[in-house]
Amino acid sequence: VDDRGLHYGDGLFETFAVRDGAPMLWDHHLARLSAGCARLRLAPPAPRLLAEEAGRLCAGQERGVLKLLLTRGPQGRGYRIAREGHGPAGRGPTRVLTLFPADPYPADHYRDGVAVRVCATRLGLNPALAGLKHLNRLEQVLARDEWDDAGIAEGLMLDARGDVVEGTMSNLFAVGEGRLYTPPVAEAGVAGVMRRLVMERAAALGVPVAEERLSVDRLMGAQEVFLCNSLIGIWPVRRIEQAAFEAGPLTRRLMAQVAPYSLMP
Amino acid sequence: VDDRGLHYGDGLFETFAVRDGAPMLWDHHLARLSAGCARLRLAPPAPRLLAEEAGRLCAGQERGVLKLLLTRGPQGRGYRIAREGHGPAGRGPTRVLTLFPADPYPADHYRDGVAVRVCATRLGLNPALAGLKHLNRLEQVLARDEWDDAGIAEGLMLDARGDVVEGTMSNLFAVGEGRLYTPPVAEAGVAGVMRRLVMERAAALGVPVAEERLSVDRLMGAQEVFLCNSLIGIWPVRRIEQAAFEAGPLTRRLMAQVAPYSLMP
Repeated sequence: VDDRGLHYGDGLFETFAVRDGAPMLWDHHLARLSAGCARLRLAPPAPRLLAEEAGRLCAGQERGVLKLLLTRGPQGRGYRIAREGHGPAGRGPTRVLTLFPADPYPADHYRDGVAVRVCATRLGLNPALAGLKHLNRLEQVLARDEWDDAGIAEGLMLDARGDVVEGTMSNLFAVGEGRLYTPPVAEAGVAGVMRRLVMERAAALGVPVAEERLSVDRLMGAQEVFLCNSLIGIWPVRRIEQAAFEAGPLTRRLMAQVAPYSLMP
Repeated sequence: VDDRGLHYGDGLFETFAVRDGAPMLWDHHLARLSAGCARLRLAPPAPRLLAEEAGRLCAGQERGVLKLLLTRGPQGRGYRIAREGHGPAGRGPTRVLTLFPADPYPADHYRDGVAVRVCATRLGLNPALAGLKHLNRLEQVLARDEWDDAGIAEGLMLDARGDVVEGTMSNLFAVGEGRLYTPPVAEAGVAGVMRRLVMERAAALGVPVAEERLSVDRLMGAQEVFLCNSLIGIWPVRRIEQAAFEAGPLTRRLMAQVAPYSLMP
């Protein structure tokens, strides 16, 4: 109860797809965690220790979800971070690793695509926190609480300017004008691990990829739209509010590329 | 470890000054907590139960600090809030009440005023969260981590537009043009309980009070500037970066008004 993760959301997390006893995209996740630790001036855990703990937890699991939560640990009251040489330095970072069952996603999400809505809850612009998978997630909580229709798989979030950034739990890509594009995450949003893999794979396939600000109008005019995260892999989008889309050829090619690293069927 | 307070900062807190065995400004704090619960669609605790728990914890304490932390409680993975009738509803909200000792603040902070700096870390604009004393506090953590000079008592935070909003742990007031003014907290910042008391007391003294956007330039031209929160009461500001201020007559009058409700000497 005295952990700064609870009091201030002072920490980071990673969510890994587990397949055949191993967390997927380990290096991608650890690179993001390490970058996040540097930005929050938080001591990163030893990679070898993490790998050992994660391996032990995931052993024998055919499919699962591993969540790693890292906080600045327990300290006294107040925003100030206690550091060596400046009073009581606390007991160091807290690590929580939890293994969850892999609830299978509906097959039609992959076959036909998903219907999504546009959320009213906006993402604040904040370069100091943007990109990080940090523990300050009330914007996502409030956005996800806007709908209760099982037919809507995800909600898109706009930033304070009104540009599309991402889904509540996923990143967003669009195909059009001969290339793949996705909103930048320098001022709002999460630099998703699957987002990175998609960009790498697209580039390897010779598809031009760009990070570009994306208005709702421009999104509605895209040829293909898809969502991605480490667990779902890629979901084609078949509908945004009233606008219909096709799960096009580039989306299908990328789905085949990332399937082995996610919980895709 | 499965509490949504830890995973998402999905909750609220209140920090009470304790004097003579009782938490101060109880009704003000509970009103803000209740408004926050409504905004986060979180079930508020029964006021009578809270009063009983707080009273028991504070009994016999001449001076202290009571922190009440309220979260949405433990639930499964994912941003979606589990509610009655939609799968497992979780175990309900978590309440944590902690009593801390009242570390006395330096006497010169009240006598001569404090020196403050302007932080580089900005507050994102987000009407959905603004005003609330929620658990997403990484902006304050990063801002407070910008300096390590014991001579600087507080850091001012600007919003994404560049307007002054508040301190990392306090609200800000300025005196000028015949009135008292403070930045609005509709898009960023915390609706402080002491901020509310100051506004009430100023109005009762016949001093015009206004919520107005405040540029750094305008702040630097103010006749008096002070900071407030539930614990410190009021600290006059004697210096912001290189600009000097006097602890003027209105600041002194308001200090006398709020002293009994805070940890002021």
